[in-house]
Amino acid sequence: MKSYTLMTPGPVPLPPEVLEIMARPMEHHRTPEFVQLFNRVLANLKKVFLTEEPVFIHTSTGSGGMESALVNCLSPGDEVISIVSGKFGERWADMAEVYGAKVTRIEVPWGQVVRREQVEDALRKQPNAVAVLCQACETSTGVLHPIRELAQLTKNHRAVLMVDAITAMGALPLPMDEWGLDVLIAGSQKAFMLPTGLSFISFSKKAWKLTETSKCPKFYFDIRAEREANENGESLFSSAVTHVRALDLVLEIFLGQGMHRVYERIQALSKATIVAAREMGLEIFSSTPSPSLTAIKIPDGIDGQKVRAEMEKSFAVIVMGGQDQLKGKIIRIGHMGAIRDEDLIATLRALAGSINKMKLGAIDDAKVEAACTKASGILRETPAVVLKT
Amino acid sequence: MKSYTLMTPGPVPLPPEVLEIMARPMEHHRTPEFVQLFNRVLANLKKVFLTEEPVFIHTSTGSGGMESALVNCLSPGDEVISIVSGKFGERWADMAEVYGAKVTRIEVPWGQVVRREQVEDALRKQPNAVAVLCQACETSTGVLHPIRELAQLTKNHRAVLMVDAITAMGALPLPMDEWGLDVLIAGSQKAFMLPTGLSFISFSKKAWKLTETSKCPKFYFDIRAEREANENGESLFSSAVTHVRALDLVLEIFLGQGMHRVYERIQALSKATIVAAREMGLEIFSSTPSPSLTAIKIPDGIDGQKVRAEMEKSFAVIVMGGQDQLKGKIIRIGHMGAIRDEDLIATLRALAGSINKMKLGAIDDAKVEAACTKASGILRETPAVVLKT
Repeated sequence: MKSYTLMTPGPVPLPPEVLEIMARPMEHHRTPEFVQLFNRVLANLKKVFLTEEPVFIHTSTGSGGMESALVNCLSPGDEVISIVSGKFGERWADMAEVYGAKVTRIEVPWGQVVRREQVEDALRKQPNAVAVLCQACETSTGVLHPIRELAQLTKNHRAVLMVDAITAMGALPLPMDEWGLDVLIAGSQKAFMLPTGLSFISFSKKAWKLTETSKCPKFYFDIRAEREANENGESLFSSAVTHVRALDLVLEIFLGQGMHRVYERIQALSKATIVAAREMGLEIFSSTPSPSLTAIKIPDGIDGQKVRAEMEKSFAVIVMGGQDQLKGKIIRIGHMGAIRDEDLIATLRALAGSINKMKLGAIDDAKVEAACTKASGILRETPAVVLKT
Repeated sequence: MKSYTLMTPGPVPLPPEVLEIMARPMEHHRTPEFVQLFNRVLANLKKVFLTEEPVFIHTSTGSGGMESALVNCLSPGDEVISIVSGKFGERWADMAEVYGAKVTRIEVPWGQVVRREQVEDALRKQPNAVAVLCQACETSTGVLHPIRELAQLTKNHRAVLMVDAITAMGALPLPMDEWGLDVLIAGSQKAFMLPTGLSFISFSKKAWKLTETSKCPKFYFDIRAEREANENGESLFSSAVTHVRALDLVLEIFLGQGMHRVYERIQALSKATIVAAREMGLEIFSSTPSPSLTAIKIPDGIDGQKVRAEMEKSFAVIVMGGQDQLKGKIIRIGHMGAIRDEDLIATLRALAGSINKMKLGAIDDAKVEAACTKASGILRETPAVVLKT
């Protein structure tokens, strides 16, 4: 297997400690040892979500977590306001429709942030709305939405705020109880530095109320059944033991170091990328970039898909391109996971080198050097979280 | 972490090759290399399912696969016949009810096999039944149901036969197309020797017809959307890369060796366990034991839960006890996964030693020795499938 520098916004590079734990012999999820570990993990997840409510683990991708939010709270016919600012916003709105919700979409141009007034207006027009759906970070555009402000709006409204924080939780603070977030969803393969396979979800008291009357059918994602099982110390279905053990390690280290250190490192990678891109004369795509990833505009006349492919082929650096309407127009660099300073520098060089291959002299060599120097300086100030304890 | 001999009917002990591959660096599921691997895995799964129809991978436990079968084929109000012979039969019937099916349960005493006439009768009484649900192997009792016979009944009926083969697929032949099985479900943490986290599912032409009109809401488990994505070479949602890579290895080895060798080894472990248990004066709980696991009756007056705990504490051997109505009455020994001859022998000694600790002299030492000798002899004739190629 060829060795690549993985710089995508999920999955992310895993630290050696996580890889090592993935290779441990299998154990059974109903043994006392594993049950103890499982309960520690659930307790520690609450400390990352900053909530007094239980946090649950589904064996699923993030999309399974998004489905869990809907099927546990909604009933067919419910009015739902869905903020659609990219591919994942579209997916969630579509999903809500599949489950019978009457969805009003707040369409936000891709790369832009939702405006408070748009949501205020929608809530005013729909006093019976049951939920507002929003991505904290819309992975397809790199935008960070003003989740705290939105929570202030839903606080005085009937609707709950459901937050897809799959590409945000663990990368930036989203204190669930303090901000009043009602449903909060995370995924394993992002800032939690694990392989794809788990989603995490928590429900506020206001959201629990909805679960009491929700009429969407559910079984695999039935959160009330899961809660009952968890209260007896167990998972509802077989635990994905390998993932959960690795999650235990990551949470112990995160909380041992303090989440602020994890956030600071991701913030530093974001800042270094933005500063370096601008130094090289490139534009940032999103109006309010999330620290978890940076979407960079590919200069006009250059095919971003070819840039991405060239970065992979000639530099062994994997980034993501744009999806759907953004195909060929942006590349997206992730800042989560076990990213070393040199990984970002290699990515910046690969980006410049690949753009120059498409259009000779598009980025001046001196600018590339200056960009890398600035990026290195920023990263040096905030070293990677030491995982080995 | 203490080292245990894991002898449960899933999760199962993983071969070193699988553990090693779990520890490989993360890669992205949309890269050409992974897409190639993913498509090879899908093609190889068809060779294990022995079907011309596509086989799909969900990131979920086996229960997610059971849900996928229902939500993709059924509509609320559909008549369903559910064979309930243990905990997993109960779960599937409950699940079908959650999704609005009118479920008629064929109750089979736990440990017994369903009789052909029971199903024939039910189908006659319900000409409009849309599906018959049955476990191939009911994990909670160790019973193997006559799936081939049931398929002969559904072949001439409107109903499809849905088979939960989570604890059977890969452990015994279940040729989907030849037998006429309509929905076939498997799970990663059983005979496929992987950690928990994936389910596999395939639909016959008769079942595909149902998916066209099915009105159960679905998104995460939407098999028509998954099929469309797979036809474009990709998974619908993020792939659980780590698991899928390990699955690729297991399938290559299984198919390289021939599935008959995998089945023979599991059959030998089953036979050795049954012969040894009887030699020690113990009874087999199930009327028709599945090769994938053996449920052994704990002698009257002895608490099986204590036997299980003692096997763990004093012998570091992990087996499963009975669930619900069988609590304390049986122990279940798994025969899937990377089980060496000495693992089964250690399990037999642990079982006898633990029973004797509860009731001095319950099993004669000479009988234990004779049992182990017989078991060793049987296993020697059918060595474990060599994994290193």
